[in-house]
Amino acid sequence: MKIRVYYEDTDAAGIVYYANYLKFCERARSEAFFSRGLSPQSDDGYFVVKRLEAEYLKPAGLGELLDVNSELLEKKAASITLLQSVSRDGEKLFEMRVKLAFLKEGRPVRIPASLYSIISEW
Amino acid sequence: MKIRVYYEDTDAAGIVYYANYLKFCERARSEAFFSRGLSPQSDDGYFVVKRLEAEYLKPAGLGELLDVNSELLEKKAASITLLQSVSRDGEKLFEMRVKLAFLKEGRPVRIPASLYSIISEW
Amino acid sequence: MKIRVYYEDTDAAGIVYYANYLKFCERARSEAFFSRGLSPQSDDGYFVVKRLEAEYLKPAGLGELLDVNSELLEKKAASITLLQSVSRDGEKLFEMRVKLAFLKEGRPVRIPASLYSIISEW
Amino acid sequence: MKIRVYYEDTDAAGIVYYANYLKFCERARSEAFFSRGLSPQSDDGYFVVKRLEAEYLKPAGLGELLDVNSELLEKKAASITLLQSVSRDGEKLFEMRVKLAFLKEGRPVRIPASLYSIISEW
Repeated sequence: MKIRVYYEDTDAAGIVYYANYLKFCERARSEAFFSRGLSPQSDDGYFVVKRLEAEYLKPAGLGELLDVNSELLEKKAASITLLQSVSRDGEKLFEMRVKLAFLKEGRPVRIPASLYSIISEW
Repeated sequence: MKIRVYYEDTDAAGIVYYANYLKFCERARSEAFFSRGLSPQSDDGYFVVKRLEAEYLKPAGLGELLDVNSELLEKKAASITLLQSVSRDGEKLFEMRVKLAFLKEGRPVRIPASLYSIISEW
Repeated sequence: MKIRVYYEDTDAAGIVYYANYLKFCERARSEAFFSRGLSPQSDDGYFVVKRLEAEYLKPAGLGELLDVNSELLEKKAASITLLQSVSRDGEKLFEMRVKLAFLKEGRPVRIPASLYSIISEW
Repeated sequence: MKIRVYYEDTDAAGIVYYANYLKFCERARSEAFFSRGLSPQSDDGYFVVKRLEAEYLKPAGLGELLDVNSELLEKKAASITLLQSVSRDGEKLFEMRVKLAFLKEGRPVRIPASLYSIISEW
């Protein structure tokens, strides 16, 4: 997934604000649903972020075109762990290991088989 | 209402991003509800922005402490118009005339009398 | 320009937050520069928003794919006025008339001829 | 530091968007400078986030009043590690361990003694 850095993503330090890399990663996760005409929130349930570990390697600047890559690290019955990174021209700028729980009405439930194809695309 | 400018509010031009003055004004409108333990969304309905006219007079910078002032310009059965401004040390930086419609289930309805005290505080 | 609505763009009312339409419009303005390998901020100067009038016609929701269109309404020596709209499947949701001044070191200056091709693309 | 949850902080899931807890924590770090009339960016240098580990314990909702608490976990010559948490009525909702490097012109430099009083307030 390609992401352009716009003014809204930067701050007075002239670079991408640190919280916005999390937005970029969420866009990539959601786009796997949207591009299929699906929603991340369905009657089956929805994913919520439980934990993340992020490393900031290099800053990104205004107008740059970034790549977001996602890799499934671990799949459990009711949660998954992804490795997501943001790169520029093949150089990694940001990397995040994020654990997502699958919930229905606020409680952890088994991830339905129908979501496997989407998750595996991550 | 006092608003501090944080990094998230600024952009690579070193000043407050133009859309964020709308956030500051919305905070002031919502705070009138929250400070009373109320929500802007109730069974009676909710306000939505229908139209706004904004003027950008001077830029605000990181760390500055701004004031948001609101004044009720017009009150109709199902809509109101406010004049909201953002100032720094008495100098006006931004001014917006905003029309809000009161809706219930997506349709315009009469603003309930119970909201008058809040609206008049704006 | 196509814009997907992600979680970050929505709010607790379930629709796109009103200030975020201004972000969508700014992305379209900036992309005309970025797609040419240029920056909206150069030694020649930069555009700043001086005034805008916006109408909110219909709400946009999570996952929807929106179009941003821009049209040059007026061109003066040191400022331009654009009409920008956000649509979904040909239906207009938001429309904004925005006046941009061209500044250098904080002062209005003549828009250089080299920017005409970009502005005319708007 | 008290933080009110406004519409801009929430998303279509009805709760605070996951990246926004990082904004809340940054506000608390910056406010320690601003409240003294100082800037986090000075001739001496500035802090950048190098790494963080975050846990999402419970969601926060619109209009809630949150507390951000910060504790200095480790202090090295050119970096510090903080434990920051977001709570509501004494119940912890979010916790983040964040490592900040002190840079000048992009290179790690020793944290000046003059910043100790601010850091220790964190």
